[in-house]
Amino acid sequence: MQSGMELHILEHKVYLISVEKEAIPIVTHSLVKLALLYKHTNCRFFSYTETCDDFSVIVDEDGFQEIPKHEKVKVQPDRWRVLNVAVGAYATNKVSGLTKIAKSVILPLADYHVSVFCMSTYQTDFILVKENDMEKAIECLSANFKVFQEKDGETMPVPINHPVDEDKLQDPGTPRPIVHPFCVPLNRFSIRSLNPETLPNVACALLEIMFYAESLISPLQDGHDRFFSYSVVDGEISLVMDADALAKFPTNSLFGSTAGECWRMIRIGGAPLGFDECGIAAQISQPLADTDISTYYISTFLTDHTLVPEEDADHVIQILKSRQQLQPIREENDDGPQHINTMNSVNSTDDSDEKLPVRHQNDKDVAYY
Amino acid sequence: MQSGMELHILEHKVYLISVEKEAIPIVTHSLVKLALLYKHTNCRFFSYTETCDDFSVIVDEDGFQEIPKHEKVKVQPDRWRVLNVAVGAYATNKVSGLTKIAKSVILPLADYHVSVFCMSTYQTDFILVKENDMEKAIECLSANFKVFQEKDGETMPVPINHPVDEDKLQDPGTPRPIVHPFCVPLNRFSIRSLNPETLPNVACALLEIMFYAESLISPLQDGHDRFFSYSVVDGEISLVMDADALAKFPTNSLFGSTAGECWRMIRIGGAPLGFDECGIAAQISQPLADTDISTYYISTFLTDHTLVPEEDADHVIQILKSRQQLQPIREENDDGPQHINTMNSVNSTDDSDEKLPVRHQNDKDVAYY
Repeated sequence: MQSGMELHILEHKVYLISVEKEAIPIVTHSLVKLALLYKHTNCRFFSYTETCDDFSVIVDEDGFQEIPKHEKVKVQPDRWRVLNVAVGAYATNKVSGLTKIAKSVILPLADYHVSVFCMSTYQTDFILVKENDMEKAIECLSANFKVFQEKDGETMPVPINHPVDEDKLQDPGTPRPIVHPFCVPLNRFSIRSLNPETLPNVACALLEIMFYAESLISPLQDGHDRFFSYSVVDGEISLVMDADALAKFPTNSLFGSTAGECWRMIRIGGAPLGFDECGIAAQISQPLADTDISTYYISTFLTDHTLVPEEDADHVIQILKSRQQLQPIREENDDGPQHINTMNSVNSTDDSDEKLPVRHQNDKDVAYY
Repeated sequence: MQSGMELHILEHKVYLISVEKEAIPIVTHSLVKLALLYKHTNCRFFSYTETCDDFSVIVDEDGFQEIPKHEKVKVQPDRWRVLNVAVGAYATNKVSGLTKIAKSVILPLADYHVSVFCMSTYQTDFILVKENDMEKAIECLSANFKVFQEKDGETMPVPINHPVDEDKLQDPGTPRPIVHPFCVPLNRFSIRSLNPETLPNVACALLEIMFYAESLISPLQDGHDRFFSYSVVDGEISLVMDADALAKFPTNSLFGSTAGECWRMIRIGGAPLGFDECGIAAQISQPLADTDISTYYISTFLTDHTLVPEEDADHVIQILKSRQQLQPIREENDDGPQHINTMNSVNSTDDSDEKLPVRHQNDKDVAYY
């Protein structure tokens, strides 16, 4: 074990849910309660993300009871556990987000063939692992962490039954090919939070954005994606939204680490990624692990998303593109995108312009690399 | 025509809807939009009332498009028009609510066999008449009013094709028997409004009360009824709520004509009243027309409700009881309630205590007169 860093297995047991776009009226009653009136419920882990394809929801068991059964509301059959690197463990590291835990958490889990679901928030990064994979995950992470389990408000050390098998772990510096296409919509994102006491002040804005984006929010501009994320975990609220959504909120109702800080989103996966493939987040975070570029990573039911500071976006895209070309074998379709579309180049420095078929329901001509 | 008083036929064409209690999740998406985000819709007439039996909703044609079709969402087949006595016509009369229009509107329409649906708000009183009855209603009301029709923002005088048939009209002083049982729950009500600009401040309170009363609001006390009404008509908001609901709102977020003014509610109808019977509101308002007691009257899909100032409640109950006994023939069941239950006597001055079967799903032992 290295350096006494702590990794906590939180008490929450969560489910991953995908709600079809047209089915939002069916779940509005339950999601309004979990998102805005959560203090009156027993749900302590709730996350909602609207993507261009679906509404991706994560809830704990109490929250899950609120969600109606419906054919357009898909539930991933596994129950997932939530891992969190203890606050402060990286206090000396100015980099935030997934970059800081790439080498210690994301890459080892990929090497151990544990698929992960990442959920960065304003406050921290959660790594979700299937309950069935937990033994393997604990074994793997015992290489770098002292592992604790939270239960009934108590924190208990977790006994390590099998020491980590170092042979399974790659050198964290080994380049990994990126096997999925990615695209970079033009939206400019903010990562914000708010004091839960002031949540009522923004309830109307949240209602409008979360449940009526298609009907009430202005149509997407070309090259923009629908993406909005809201989570409440143990009473801490986190939001990821683009400039159009931000404009819906009352002035000074939200706070952010740096006012005016803008993020660009890289969407990974031209088709649903599934829940079994390992190493997607590792492929993205590995080449950034030695940089000082912060990355937020938000997995959803269908696709993954990483957010990077706007000023670093071109650099990150170049790095990721080079990793796509690394890729030795594409197991999937060979017609996958390899080229950059100028529309999506942050500074339009690339002159290739092969445009790929639009694969998502509601994106506005966002092309894939 | 008397005295040049004006009656306006508003532009709205509205539908009456009843949502079963358990079906509220089915309509939450549409009702949140109509109630809280109405500025983003074309709906200009929306009213929501939760009773102990159902959610009773009134919407104009644009709002109606938002309401999902469902077997537990019943729509009364008629389209209704909205009548309104012009503001200022009774400016010298300190009495508010239905009392002031009893003799000029409610009694004549009853005599003309026009069934009405009354909707008092903080700002005014609306009288809803079936579209098919409008010709009859205009003829009848031409006795007392100059009738105008609003269309595309214009106000046009309505030609009177047939003068009122005075023979049809009873002497407004003639006592009318009250044919339906009524009860007086113990809740203490307030009639309030708020500036639409500040609606976002109370959105969470409204969500909680309107959509989650059964699950999130404390259980009803004995002798109390579930009753909450919220309407937005042409941008004016009106609320009727009991003390428990009022406590959910932030301090100073609502205004009322007299702070601390309390109202008691008389619920009329031990069983659904239907939409064809004429004269129910006339029976209640006629004996009060010569008093200086203000009355608000709120019809819902299943039952009618009149609100009277708490200090007048005993007096009103005595008047209404005497009108029940007047009743010469009960066409309906003979086992209808005739006695007062002490629990419901505001000052407990009555000593009879015959308790009647509870007829409503969610009332807490509220007995009928």
